[in-house]
Amino acid sequence: KEILSAKPKINDVLKYSERAAMCTNELSRRLFGIMDKKKSNLALSADVTSSKELLQLVDKTGPHVCMVKTHVDILEDFNQEVVEKLTSLAAKHNFVLFEDRKFADIGNTVMHQYSGGVYHISEWADLINAHAVPGPGVIHGLKKIGASKGRACLLIAEMSSSGNLAKGSYSQDTVKMAEENKDFVIGFICVSKVSSDPTFLHMTPGVQLEAGKDNLGQQYLTPSEVIGNRGSDIMIVGRGIYQAQDPALAAKQFQIAGYDAYMARMAEAMIV
Amino acid sequence: KEILSAKPKINDVLKYSERAAMCTNELSRRLFGIMDKKKSNLALSADVTSSKELLQLVDKTGPHVCMVKTHVDILEDFNQEVVEKLTSLAAKHNFVLFEDRKFADIGNTVMHQYSGGVYHISEWADLINAHAVPGPGVIHGLKKIGASKGRACLLIAEMSSSGNLAKGSYSQDTVKMAEENKDFVIGFICVSKVSSDPTFLHMTPGVQLEAGKDNLGQQYLTPSEVIGNRGSDIMIVGRGIYQAQDPALAAKQFQIAGYDAYMARMAEAMIV
Repeated sequence: KEILSAKPKINDVLKYSERAAMCTNELSRRLFGIMDKKKSNLALSADVTSSKELLQLVDKTGPHVCMVKTHVDILEDFNQEVVEKLTSLAAKHNFVLFEDRKFADIGNTVMHQYSGGVYHISEWADLINAHAVPGPGVIHGLKKIGASKGRACLLIAEMSSSGNLAKGSYSQDTVKMAEENKDFVIGFICVSKVSSDPTFLHMTPGVQLEAGKDNLGQQYLTPSEVIGNRGSDIMIVGRGIYQAQDPALAAKQFQIAGYDAYMARMAEAMIV
Repeated sequence: KEILSAKPKINDVLKYSERAAMCTNELSRRLFGIMDKKKSNLALSADVTSSKELLQLVDKTGPHVCMVKTHVDILEDFNQEVVEKLTSLAAKHNFVLFEDRKFADIGNTVMHQYSGGVYHISEWADLINAHAVPGPGVIHGLKKIGASKGRACLLIAEMSSSGNLAKGSYSQDTVKMAEENKDFVIGFICVSKVSSDPTFLHMTPGVQLEAGKDNLGQQYLTPSEVIGNRGSDIMIVGRGIYQAQDPALAAKQFQIAGYDAYMARMAEAMIV
């Protein structure tokens, strides 16, 4: 009887296409659309240090992903051509480009870091992210640069690393900051669903086909745990793909595992 | 009677030279030594976007500072020559070079960001900083790269921006992480003294000759408030110097104000 009366959590019964239609932010609408069309909730974390390797990896895995996450600041041979080729690949394979810069300074500084320097991140990255620790000024600074270009931002509400401090009131305050800046903040980096607003995207790093950890405190969860049990929307996979013997095959396996977990979650929510 | 029985806080009666002698970390020993020799607790925050302007500013203000804080990732024209000239200026004027990168990712990622990319920060920056939000893995990753090169790290225990989340248990956990990694972490970015350990350096940004704020949430305190009342060791001054008509004169004024506040604090602690 209790089970019958339990209401499904709203995100869990809404399809990507339905959530796309609810979004007022152009980029989140586009991303939900890609997830629906490509049947993929997989983001590649392309943490390689050579541009050639990066572009080959992205081209191979592109058909299977809705998003590619970069750390351009670890490339040994970065130049303007790399971002031009990356944006071409994003158009070719229809994915969103997310620079995982983790902005974490005061507004005035992040404006320069986002628009300027060697990388000019605001010129090519659809999506960026920020830690909430500096307070709302970090969002306001980034928004000043990115909003008019159609860019958007994620806030890091939770982390996957051992002993991290993104928990409790810190996470709650982060969600509140996102809700107060919905014109520019479209979701979260988190390890489980932190908001019931269906227009917010939840993205979870630290995903492998088997649970475990690395020797610097990173902790891994499986696709069915992340998407199925924890209600996240996008799983971010790095070493599970780029360290695989066949990255395209690995990406395809993750794509299927993630999409299956999403379909199973939907089916379960419908029954309840 | 109460005043007579009050014990002075240990840092407040120890001179820079005495604290230098207590340090086991080579860089903190060196920094306390510079502060003593140059009679300066002033750090310049050199937030300009042209290399030429940066190098001129640093050369002009160098005699007055114990440390120069950079954001190399906002320079429009960064190249290897810039860091070579910066390190030459650091030797010429005897100051510590601090890249304010605010590392804030998991250990595996910050290792690459610190050592690699375009900037190779670990090759030239004496000091870096990190947010504690990712947990101790961020320190362990940075330490793997920096410790053998004689580098050191600050943790951001508090911030000067409005509505920031570095407070309460977040700050306490940060101090604990620093204490557990004293071989590499030599102090804090904070707005007041967070540890009574005299070998830790407390550094406070957001300092102007008059209190106030900017339009993106940055809040300013005065030298006497920061060094005198809040017990910080180093005041970090940006716009108050580089936006001044005569940056060298402004740096000299801050140097005197900061050192006077330190001497007054010492005198007051002695009397008590």
